[in-house]
Amino acid sequence: MTSPIVVFTTDFGLSDAYAGVMKGVALGINPNLRLIDLTHQILPQNVAQGSFLLGINHLFFPDDAIHVAVVDPGVGTDRRPVLLTTPCGTFVSPDNGLLSGVVDRYLESVPESTGPVALPSELSAVHLTNPDYWRHPVSHTFHGRDIFTPVAAHLSLGVAPRDMGEPIDHLYYLPLPQPVSQGDAITGQVIYQDVYGNLVTNIPADNLPDVELVDVRIKGRSIVGLSRTFNDSRHVGEDGLIALAGSHGYLEVALPNGSAADSLAGSEGEAVTVVYSSG
Amino acid sequence: MTSPIVVFTTDFGLSDAYAGVMKGVALGINPNLRLIDLTHQILPQNVAQGSFLLGINHLFFPDDAIHVAVVDPGVGTDRRPVLLTTPCGTFVSPDNGLLSGVVDRYLESVPESTGPVALPSELSAVHLTNPDYWRHPVSHTFHGRDIFTPVAAHLSLGVAPRDMGEPIDHLYYLPLPQPVSQGDAITGQVIYQDVYGNLVTNIPADNLPDVELVDVRIKGRSIVGLSRTFNDSRHVGEDGLIALAGSHGYLEVALPNGSAADSLAGSEGEAVTVVYSSG
Amino acid sequence: MTSPIVVFTTDFGLSDAYAGVMKGVALGINPNLRLIDLTHQILPQNVAQGSFLLGINHLFFPDDAIHVAVVDPGVGTDRRPVLLTTPCGTFVSPDNGLLSGVVDRYLESVPESTGPVALPSELSAVHLTNPDYWRHPVSHTFHGRDIFTPVAAHLSLGVAPRDMGEPIDHLYYLPLPQPVSQGDAITGQVIYQDVYGNLVTNIPADNLPDVELVDVRIKGRSIVGLSRTFNDSRHVGEDGLIALAGSHGYLEVALPNGSAADSLAGSEGEAVTVVYSSG
Repeated sequence: MTSPIVVFTTDFGLSDAYAGVMKGVALGINPNLRLIDLTHQILPQNVAQGSFLLGINHLFFPDDAIHVAVVDPGVGTDRRPVLLTTPCGTFVSPDNGLLSGVVDRYLESVPESTGPVALPSELSAVHLTNPDYWRHPVSHTFHGRDIFTPVAAHLSLGVAPRDMGEPIDHLYYLPLPQPVSQGDAITGQVIYQDVYGNLVTNIPADNLPDVELVDVRIKGRSIVGLSRTFNDSRHVGEDGLIALAGSHGYLEVALPNGSAADSLAGSEGEAVTVVYSSG
Repeated sequence: MTSPIVVFTTDFGLSDAYAGVMKGVALGINPNLRLIDLTHQILPQNVAQGSFLLGINHLFFPDDAIHVAVVDPGVGTDRRPVLLTTPCGTFVSPDNGLLSGVVDRYLESVPESTGPVALPSELSAVHLTNPDYWRHPVSHTFHGRDIFTPVAAHLSLGVAPRDMGEPIDHLYYLPLPQPVSQGDAITGQVIYQDVYGNLVTNIPADNLPDVELVDVRIKGRSIVGLSRTFNDSRHVGEDGLIALAGSHGYLEVALPNGSAADSLAGSEGEAVTVVYSSG
Repeated sequence: MTSPIVVFTTDFGLSDAYAGVMKGVALGINPNLRLIDLTHQILPQNVAQGSFLLGINHLFFPDDAIHVAVVDPGVGTDRRPVLLTTPCGTFVSPDNGLLSGVVDRYLESVPESTGPVALPSELSAVHLTNPDYWRHPVSHTFHGRDIFTPVAAHLSLGVAPRDMGEPIDHLYYLPLPQPVSQGDAITGQVIYQDVYGNLVTNIPADNLPDVELVDVRIKGRSIVGLSRTFNDSRHVGEDGLIALAGSHGYLEVALPNGSAADSLAGSEGEAVTVVYSSG
C-alpha cells in the first residue's frame, strides 16, 4: 500500500525548527505519511509569491497529494482556515489568497480585484471549524503546526472534509498582476526572481510567437528573438541578456553565466514588454 | 507496518553534504527508515541553543521517534557518545549538555551549575562503547555519520540499548539561564531569535497573568499588555513592539510586519523584565 | 518490501521550488519512492565541486540507490543525458563530467585532460534517448524535472537501462586537480571549503605519514604535526591553524573555534604543501 503524500509550501524558512516540527505532528497522527517539502522559502508573508509558485508547481504532484500551504500574516485573526479539494490535489491553508494560483486554473475569467470568488463546480471547500482534528492547545501564532498539519494528517487517514467543518462556496481571491495586450505588444512584469537571478515574468510562454523577431524590452534593454536554452548564442540582446520560455511556463529574462537580476538591478514588479516586431 | 522514524537535529547546515550523507548511512543499515530533519541550522557549536530547541520540539514527535542530535564541538575528544531513553523519544547524542532541555522535563529541580546530573527514574541512558554498531573506519571529526546515525539505525532494527554500551546514571548537564522572580517582577532573557526576528525569551508563557496591565520591558522600551496574535493592535508598545505568548510556550517580543531583533538591535542574552503592574 | 531510494545532488539551492517539484514528478511515477537530498547546494554550475562531493559521498549510500545528479550549465544543448550503472549506485545525470568523481574510483589511472574516457568493465552506461520515459512537454531549461527525475523513477519501477537509450562505452571526464609528489613533499590544493570554513584539500589522508613532524604549509603559514581532532592542542600551527585527516578522507586545514577560510582569506584553489620533515 502506498503512503499518502503531504507536501509543504511555507515561508517558515529552514533556519528554525518550524518546518521540522510540523512533520513531527503529522507523523504523530499518521506515521505512514510521506512528507515532501515543495519549499519553505516563500518570501516572508508574501502571499502573492506563494500563490504563484503553488499554482504552477502543484500540477507536478500526484492528484492525491495533500498540500499544506502556509504563508499566513493573519495567523490568529479571523481569516478562515480552509480545505480545498481539486482534481489535482487537496489543499489545507489560510483563506487569504494563497490558493488563488490554484483556483485560477479552473476559473473562466480571472477576477481583477481582491475579495471572495465563487468556486467553480470542479472545486469544493470547507471552512475548518471542527477542533477535533486540531492539535491542542492551539497556539495563536503557529496554525501550521496546530491546525493545518493536523487536518492534513487526519485527512490522509480518511476523515471526510465535511466532518472537519462547514462547506463554503467562496474563497478569498488575490489577483496576480496580469499582462496587458495592446496592438502588437504585450506588457507584463517580473513576478519572481529565482536563485540564479533569472527574472520570471507573468507573460505565458505558450502565447509567444515562435519567431526570431520578437523584441523583449526590460529597463531600456532590447532582446530580439527568443533563445531556446541558456546557451543559445543566436539571440543575445543588449548587455548579454537573453529571453526564453522558462520552465515555469512563462517568459524569462536571463543572463547566461550570470544573474539578470543583478545585471539589471531589477526584481519583482519590473515591467517587461514583448513587441511582435515586423523587423 | 510502520517505518521507524529518525529525526535529525544538528548544526551541520545545508550548504554541505554532511546532513545528506548521514541519511545514506542510516538507509544502508535500515532501508525502511523514515528520515526527518528537525533542523540542521542550530548555530554552529551552540550546544545551549540546540538544547533549548530540542527540549521544546521533541515533544511534538511520536514517542517512538529516535532522535539523532549532534552539536558536537568536542567531537573526537573524550566526551562520551550516549543513548538516552525517555517516555517521549530516544536520543543518540554526544554527552555535552545537548540533551539538557530534554532531561529538564523530568527533573524536580533544575541544576544551577554545569556538570553531571543524576537521571530520574523515568529516564535511562547508555554510554555507547560497542563499536559493533558503528560505521568503520570511524573518522575523528564526524561522529554524526560514523557513530550516532549508525547507532540510531541499529536501534530501529531492534538492537537493545544495553547491547550498545554500559548503563550510566548521570548525564552532563548544561543549565540554561533561568528567569528570576522578585516582588511583582520576573526578569529573564532572550534565549533565541527566530528567522522573522522574533525574540523568544526564557519566561514561560503559562506563568504570565492574563491581564492587560502586565508591563514587558526590553532595552528601555515598555510594552503594556500582552497581544494574542501578531495582528492584535490593542497592546502595541513603544517603537511598535508587541509581547505575546509564542508558539514555543515562552514570552516573545515581536515587531508586527518587521523584525524586533533588527529594531532593537537585540539578540540572545538581552534582559527582559515582566512587571505585574497594578496600573 | 523496501521502498527504492532516489538521492538528489544538485545546484538548485533551496530558495526556489526546483528541488521540491522534482519530488512531485518522481512520486507521480512511483509513489513508493524514498526521496533523499544529498545536497542541493553545489556551487551554481560548479561541475567540478559536484563531481568531488558526489564521488566521495555516494559510497555512503546503499548500492541500490538511484542518484539524480544535476549540475547542468549546458542544459538544452547537445550534451547527452546519461545513465551510469556502478557496483555502488546508479546515476542519472548530464554527461558533462559530473560523474567523474564516481568513475574515478574504477579507473586504473586518472586521465589528465578533459574529454571522453573509456568505461572500465565494472561500469556500464546508456545515452538516454527514449522519450517514453521523460515528462512532456520537456522544457529546454529544466531537465532535472523533465528527464533525469522521470528516468530515475521509471528505473525504480524496474525498467531496464537498455530500454531507455543506447549503450555507450565512454563518458565525458573532467579531471580534478591532482596532488603532485616531489622528493619529500606533496603539493595539492584546497578543493572545497565547508560551512565551518574548513579547507578540504585533494591530498588523500591515508597517504599521510602518521608522524608528528609532517609540515603542512598554506599561504605562508606552517603547521607541524597532524591533529587528531579539532580539539587536539598538541599540533597548533601558525595563526592557530591545525591540519588533520578530515571526514572526506582528505587532509583538511582548520581553525579550532573559527574559520580557516576567513582567517587565511583562502578558498578553493589555494596551494597546500605537505613536507615530510625529518626534523
